[in-house]
This record gives sequence, structure tokens and C-alpha cells, in this order.
Amino acid sequence: MSAEEYVFCQVVDRTVESSRVYEDDEILAFMDIQPVTDGHLLIIPKRHAPHLADLDEQLGMSMFRVAQRLAATLRNSGTPCDGVNLFLADGEAAFQEVFHVHLHVFPRATGDGFRIDADWRERPRAELDVAAEHIRGGMLTSST
Amino acid sequence: MSAEEYVFCQVVDRTVESSRVYEDDEILAFMDIQPVTDGHLLIIPKRHAPHLADLDEQLGMSMFRVAQRLAATLRNSGTPCDGVNLFLADGEAAFQEVFHVHLHVFPRATGDGFRIDADWRERPRAELDVAAEHIRGGMLTSST
Repeated sequence: MSAEEYVFCQVVDRTVESSRVYEDDEILAFMDIQPVTDGHLLIIPKRHAPHLADLDEQLGMSMFRVAQRLAATLRNSGTPCDGVNLFLADGEAAFQEVFHVHLHVFPRATGDGFRIDADWRERPRAELDVAAEHIRGGMLTSST
Repeated sequence: MSAEEYVFCQVVDRTVESSRVYEDDEILAFMDIQPVTDGHLLIIPKRHAPHLADLDEQLGMSMFRVAQRLAATLRNSGTPCDGVNLFLADGEAAFQEVFHVHLHVFPRATGDGFRIDADWRERPRAELDVAAEHIRGGMLTSST
């Protein structure tokens, strides 16, 4: 646990500066200081929650509602925006860097610098069925 | 508008096969046929909505709730999972390929093949403040 974990709490209480876009009792949205494209926003719960597993479900839903509204806003803001990505990283292996849940919302335009790379070849149905069964199994276990 | 736009409607009505993981009255989750990592899921609203702008907000919130639960499930399923990414592409410029809103949920492990690339240098506060002002302006316009 590092001081970095609390930098978004400091944004919330204004001991660290930010460029705010939206705020209500539960949620804050502000400009990412290292934007992948111009207009890149972060949406956070004001109450500290390091990981998705720590986040109240109602707060998660509120975050997504704000994301959906801000995606519409970006398309209407004069910022170049032919599309929008939402991205959330939960855990260091998933590229989470600040351990306070945050949902990225960023505008996209054809030819911008954002790239994704992966090995996404099509998989056989039998393999997908086995994976689905494992995951459904995890669901049963976690509900008991 | 292509036939591809309706492939997820065909998944919903079972005229196209899928490996289902979760289902309720509004939402369906199933295995991505071209997973970026093993265990890659798609969460969709059953009712057709091409873009985020067409998606009922309550349905969007329900999608996120299911995503949060399935992220927890993936960590509990035996699938290699040290982290989880959520990703949504809205618009062709944002890498949307099937024009029926879908939220990706995929497990991550250190050293897996998923990569992001962007020019994410830190920006000066003044530049971020101007961007925030433009976006807030878009919000005002869209609420009138």
C-alpha cells in the first residue's frame, strides 16, 4: 500500500489539484493527467475503494451512469470524438496503477495513437463451453 | 448497417450458438469467441441497442452490476486471473465491431498477451483546465 493509493482521495478533498468535469455526492469525474487522447476522463467513487471487490454495487452502477452521460457529453463538446472507450483496470496485472477504483472514459478518432494488441484468434466451441462451465462453477461457489 | 449488427440478437434468441455464463430478464453474458485471454466474457443487453447513446441508463447500470459480479466470479473460477479489465468500445473509431452495445470482461495475468499502447505523457494543468471547461460546456448544451 503506497501513498499513491490515496492520491484520488486527495483529489476528492482538494489537497491535490484536478480539472473537474462532474461531481455529485458519490462520484467525481476529472481530467486524466496523462491522457491517452485529448478529453480523457477518470470517474471515481468519492469513498475510497482500492478494487472492484471493495466497491459498493450501487456506487459501481452510479459510476457507469456517469460514464454513459459523459460519453454523450464528449461527443457534444467540440473535442475530436468519433467514438468513446470505457476502460477499467482492476489489479496490477490488469494495469491498475492507482489503487482507488477508476473508470476511464476517453474520446477516440480514426488515426489517434491508442492501440490494443492481443492474440484474439477464434476458439473452438468445445473450448469455450468448458471455460463457461468453469466460470459458472465459480459463480455457484461464490454465492454459497 | 450490416447483418453483423444483429449477431448478438441472434445469440439472445439462440439462432446463433454461444457459451452462456449468466442470464437474467435484461442481460446476457457469454464467452467471447475471440478471447484476448482465457475467460474473456461479453455482457450485453438483450434488447438491441447499437450504441451507448441508444442504451437505456438502467440497462447500462445493470450491465455494470453484472460485470462487477462476473469479475469477482472470474477470480474464483480456477481460470488464471490476477486482475480483470472491463472494456467498452462505442463507435467504429473506438474499435467497436458489432453494433450492439457490449461490455468486455477479461481476466489478466502477469505476462499475458494483452497490450495497450498510447502517447500518455503528462499534460500541463492549464491545458487540462481548458479541456475540462470545454467538456463542461458540452454538458450544459446537452442538458438544454
